[in-house]
Amino acid sequence: MSLENPQSSIVLLSGGLDSTVLLAKLVAEKRRVLALGIHYGQRHAREIDAARAVCSHYGVEYRLADLRAVSAFFGKNSLTDSDIPVYEGAYNEDGMKNTVVPARNLLLISLATSWAIAEKCDTIAYAAHGGDHAIYPDCREEFAEKLDAVVRISDWHPVRLERPFVGMSKGEIVALGAKLGAPLHLTWSCYNGGNAHCGKCATCIERAAAFREAGLPDPTVYA
Amino acid sequence: MSLENPQSSIVLLSGGLDSTVLLAKLVAEKRRVLALGIHYGQRHAREIDAARAVCSHYGVEYRLADLRAVSAFFGKNSLTDSDIPVYEGAYNEDGMKNTVVPARNLLLISLATSWAIAEKCDTIAYAAHGGDHAIYPDCREEFAEKLDAVVRISDWHPVRLERPFVGMSKGEIVALGAKLGAPLHLTWSCYNGGNAHCGKCATCIERAAAFREAGLPDPTVYA
Repeated sequence: MSLENPQSSIVLLSGGLDSTVLLAKLVAEKRRVLALGIHYGQRHAREIDAARAVCSHYGVEYRLADLRAVSAFFGKNSLTDSDIPVYEGAYNEDGMKNTVVPARNLLLISLATSWAIAEKCDTIAYAAHGGDHAIYPDCREEFAEKLDAVVRISDWHPVRLERPFVGMSKGEIVALGAKLGAPLHLTWSCYNGGNAHCGKCATCIERAAAFREAGLPDPTVYA
Repeated sequence: MSLENPQSSIVLLSGGLDSTVLLAKLVAEKRRVLALGIHYGQRHAREIDAARAVCSHYGVEYRLADLRAVSAFFGKNSLTDSDIPVYEGAYNEDGMKNTVVPARNLLLISLATSWAIAEKCDTIAYAAHGGDHAIYPDCREEFAEKLDAVVRISDWHPVRLERPFVGMSKGEIVALGAKLGAPLHLTWSCYNGGNAHCGKCATCIERAAAFREAGLPDPTVYA
């Protein structure tokens, strides 16, 4: 159970590409894995079904934290308010600013820390990566480093944050996923809900680009 | 709105003595104050009524974050499981260990951070004090310092943690409360529920001792 060779991990699993590949990686390392999903009122709750499907594929326990009762604390943003439209087109600061959910990662990792302590897990793994955008203050490496320092002393049982994809691009993550046989066709990225990916929002555009960068066929069904 | 002279604060208000005196202090400083309470499945939910009464007294907005949907993540402990008895007698490590709710303060402050960012508040104030016990890892000063470093970079809008009572004893806090005219008779401390304080659990024993230390009459109704 040393921190150098973690035996058990909680993975933050949104149901998108990055976190699914991370789950595949931890399973390949033969760790005990528990998957944590969050319902915070996001309009693309379709990703929760995707996360469940991925966990069924691997026989991994999935637990959903329902935080809808506190979504009012996040203020107005397009991910939780259906009356604010999601920006269409490639990522840019002005367009995407309304997708910022204040301190979302802090809240997710806090809850993961409670669960990790209760389950005596060694690490909390999450799929922060090189392509994460600077408009999300809580995606910055400095933020992750400082939060790791907090998580490590949150209990007498040591837990740490793991971000194995921090130096990788989204294309590299997809390529790793394919190599590990991850069920990428089950994943969901689109910020709009619906039954098929819209193909127009910034996350859809990035998803398609990641498959292109990896030189792989894109299994996504677009509307 | 400088961080040196905070104009607006979110106060973590449990409804107990310490946080009520903190609210009284912030009101006396003429700040804009918002009060945050949490329902995490604690058996002493009676403290929530106390917090509401204190906020009514001051005309301060109170908002309750209902986290009962995620209380299963906290594992087994006597504060959230009614089948585990609360220890009776003075604080001691073995007796009180089952009152530890894993990473509770991390979760509370995370949620307060989301709200502070959404409301553009300058600080999150909480009533950590010199008498807090070492069995709660997330009450340690080292923990608060590291979490403050995280909160400060959680958004482009700067927020910081404030712990003005960190060098004070519970008796000194009660004395300050009396000086400020805080409605101490409205507060609730007992870890058991009920309509009157049990007088036997460790928090009741500490409450009574704080009034004695302050040289003040204890307004508490004991069962």
